Amino acid sequence: MLELLSEHACFGGVQRFYRHDAQAIGLPMRFSAFIPDTAPGSVATTKRPALFYLAGLTCTEETFMIKGGAQRVAAEEGLILIAPDTSPRGANIAGESDSWDFGVGAGFYVDATEAPWRSHYRMYSYLLELRALLEEELAIDAQRTGIFGHSMGGHGALVLALRNPELFRSVSAFAPIAAPSQCPWGKKAFTGYLGSDEASWQQYDASALMRGLPGQPPLFPQGILIDQGLADKFLPEQLHPDIFEAACRDAGQPLRLRRHAGYDHGYYFIASFMEEHVRFHAHNLRALG
Amino acid sequence: MLELLSEHACFGGVQRFYRHDAQAIGLPMRFSAFIPDTAPGSVATTKRPALFYLAGLTCTEETFMIKGGAQRVAAEEGLILIAPDTSPRGANIAGESDSWDFGVGAGFYVDATEAPWRSHYRMYSYLLELRALLEEELAIDAQRTGIFGHSMGGHGALVLALRNPELFRSVSAFAPIAAPSQCPWGKKAFTGYLGSDEASWQQYDASALMRGLPGQPPLFPQGILIDQGLADKFLPEQLHPDIFEAACRDAGQPLRLRRHAGYDHGYYFIASFMEEHVRFHAHNLRALG
Repeated sequence: MLELLSEHACFGGVQRFYRHDAQAIGLPMRFSAFIPDTAPGSVATTKRPALFYLAGLTCTEETFMIKGGAQRVAAEEGLILIAPDTSPRGANIAGESDSWDFGVGAGFYVDATEAPWRSHYRMYSYLLELRALLEEELAIDAQRTGIFGHSMGGHGALVLALRNPELFRSVSAFAPIAAPSQCPWGKKAFTGYLGSDEASWQQYDASALMRGLPGQPPLFPQGILIDQGLADKFLPEQLHPDIFEAACRDAGQPLRLRRHAGYDHGYYFIASFMEEHVRFHAHNLRALG
Repeated sequence: MLELLSEHACFGGVQRFYRHDAQAIGLPMRFSAFIPDTAPGSVATTKRPALFYLAGLTCTEETFMIKGGAQRVAAEEGLILIAPDTSPRGANIAGESDSWDFGVGAGFYVDATEAPWRSHYRMYSYLLELRALLEEELAIDAQRTGIFGHSMGGHGALVLALRNPELFRSVSAFAPIAAPSQCPWGKKAFTGYLGSDEASWQQYDASALMRGLPGQPPLFPQGILIDQGLADKFLPEQLHPDIFEAACRDAGQPLRLRRHAGYDHGYYFIASFMEEHVRFHAHNLRALG
């Protein structure tokens, strides 16, 4: 079911790029996988914990693997890394490539309900499909899967985890769009994909989801980790970690939100704190027993 | 003299991109610099050892900083990292962008003697100029500078170090073009930049330079480190580390040439062994006393 496009030895493991027919999308999708302690050409049969990474606007399945510097730590921790693409490609919807913050490269990890997007832009369901597929195909441990991401992908990671805590048992984010219903990027995307009824947006808004939780016990007793640069030009208007922070406080969800002076929104920031995120997830997933 | 184009906080230091008027080139050139333990916006006045990285064909001053994963280790070691571009840009020579292995992105770190290239394609002299400039501008320690690189840049690093061991006192390479006079890439580049008289090529051929050394004592008593992937598709025809290895043996130059099963020519290979290279240089430069 998976077509192997390329593979590269990397930190004693293998960095692979795959394509497969995604049922939720109705088109072929690409994703990347780092598998530790595995040689090129060999089949991965050892069951291992896995960590999904969702990238931000304009990125692809390659971005994280090139720029994140996570493979070194994943190799040490015995973690599989999975990075999907950020939208369908080749849907051929009029205008889908006109904006960098909507359409191609900007799927926002939601299932669109509005025409014409609803036919293919179903990244939320796709991620659940991909995770289930990789239990079979790459032997990822269904009981030990975490998720993290950056910006739009930080939003996606928080939403996927909050709605599926039994599937994604550890969650963190770099500079997430933490309250998308209340920022220009989110309003544009949600209006386009979900329509103008803001009630339908709440299922894809991490802060709204957190506010809707019943409180104790927290969904993630080991906490949620978020890193945010204070020189991030998108922080004032787009990201709103403070809203998510308040929602976590009200819900009794432990959150470690670290604000870093001088750091911006890019991968030099992300790489600087990558090791701590990967080890956070490895620790959390091991602790599941 | 340096124009700061952008900067990003990174591993407690700062990742910068600069432009400056390069006299050896006669055009503006770009380079990148990682400076440890320094905040964005501040002037680097602490004298620190520095490590130059020369990239391969088609790369820019950005490639290493995005893909290499070196900043983390350089931050720990207190090393400045410098990555120049791989050729002049904007020389506007007819045909300079027609090939990926000659002209733009393929300066081969030589001073061209053939028209029309000789007017701008003078990367060898440019590197010496840049190193001297950065003693002034970025406070790099003139007594503690090393150099390394990949492929075409591995060739460049070996040549710069062998010809200027008093300036570059530690040298290593990833998959270098180790005997360029004897491979298609090198023959094409040297014929174009230097002409058809192969005697003029020898000053830019690491294996020929090593064969021309008088023997003991070795230029680099702490050794030269080279990593080479055995699944590198360019190994059989283009790289010839065996020729350089034999030349080092004959010259009494200690060489640690590590051959790695399964690894290819790309940055997943380079990143896998980056930490060892950076620590090798840091150790060598510290040992200079």
